[in-house]
Amino acid sequence: MMKNIAVILSGCGVYDGTEINEAVLTYLHLENNGFIYKTFAPNKTQHHVIDHMKGVELQETRNVLTESARIVRGNIQDLAELNHSDFDGIVVVGGFGVAKNISDIAFKGGEFKIDSNIQEVLNSFTNRPALYMCIAPVVASKIYKTAKITIGNCVDTAAIVTANNCDHIECDQYNCVVDVENKLVTTPAFMRAENVSQANIGIEKAIKCFKDIF
Amino acid sequence: MMKNIAVILSGCGVYDGTEINEAVLTYLHLENNGFIYKTFAPNKTQHHVIDHMKGVELQETRNVLTESARIVRGNIQDLAELNHSDFDGIVVVGGFGVAKNISDIAFKGGEFKIDSNIQEVLNSFTNRPALYMCIAPVVASKIYKTAKITIGNCVDTAAIVTANNCDHIECDQYNCVVDVENKLVTTPAFMRAENVSQANIGIEKAIKCFKDIF
Repeated sequence: MMKNIAVILSGCGVYDGTEINEAVLTYLHLENNGFIYKTFAPNKTQHHVIDHMKGVELQETRNVLTESARIVRGNIQDLAELNHSDFDGIVVVGGFGVAKNISDIAFKGGEFKIDSNIQEVLNSFTNRPALYMCIAPVVASKIYKTAKITIGNCVDTAAIVTANNCDHIECDQYNCVVDVENKLVTTPAFMRAENVSQANIGIEKAIKCFKDIF
Repeated sequence: MMKNIAVILSGCGVYDGTEINEAVLTYLHLENNGFIYKTFAPNKTQHHVIDHMKGVELQETRNVLTESARIVRGNIQDLAELNHSDFDGIVVVGGFGVAKNISDIAFKGGEFKIDSNIQEVLNSFTNRPALYMCIAPVVASKIYKTAKITIGNCVDTAAIVTANNCDHIECDQYNCVVDVENKLVTTPAFMRAENVSQANIGIEKAIKCFKDIF
């Protein structure tokens, strides 16, 4: 029986939303490993809009759900419509959207909070297989009471994970960390990947490990 | 010696810009086949902005170069800065951006024109290997005097290709058409692909064929 996965996006573009390459590679390997999936994003205003070429903030307002829809050719639903009993597992894709729209990690560091609607969804999946990539494992460190987690090798970010009562395990971009007890897979992706092909190797491996814990 | 490829984007999102999945898969297989690359997009206002979830036009103004930068984490240059002698070949990624920003195919059909700055760049590559995917081969049909080209199996679009003195060859999403004389590869990608993994097979094959014509 095919497993149905909820994929969570947080905008469109690494600096104010989803890391686009990670999202596409996630879909590629979910499909190649026999999963079916639906995509969700929160229907809320982005924290801000960044000009990805110049690195400056623009005076624009964009919606996380509307922008996320660009990655998936419109095949997306409001996160508020996610019924967790319809899904066997969850994948949270990375990018600053996780640290700016889904949570406020980018601004509050260790004192961060998770958007309460999203926190409720993520909590509802703690007894099912979950894959958090890139910066998203920091969010996971507040969702799980304790867990083995990687965010790559960033000392400052790892300190937040540790402060949240989780074990941080250093990991390169080609690998992932599997916490079998929590059914939780984490992988650094573009926390360490220097190009698309490196990210592809790590995400492919993480999705195979994700499959193995079902 | 590694071949250096110019990749042309036309925005960020299939309905008003670049087909995002095609772009990411292009980079993946360029890297996996030993190419190096730089990305370019025209520094101009998008024809319009489409809400990809609702399919309606938004009253916003966005720039093709600025939006394209989202896909490549900011690693992009203005197409006006492209010096064709720096590159060994070119890839034109698909999406409605090709039919709305790079040309006006979406509005004029067979009477379409190509943006004159982009036409100049594409003309400068006609003696070097080129890969056009998705709807972009229709643009190629006006760049090359005559060529073997596929846009998949869309009868209306194929008629434009034929009217431009090119041979249209029907092709599925897993394959590509190679015109050895013109050093031109075309592949349907999301003109026919129903998901990311189907597009991946066709784009991987097209980039291998692209490599073979160097």
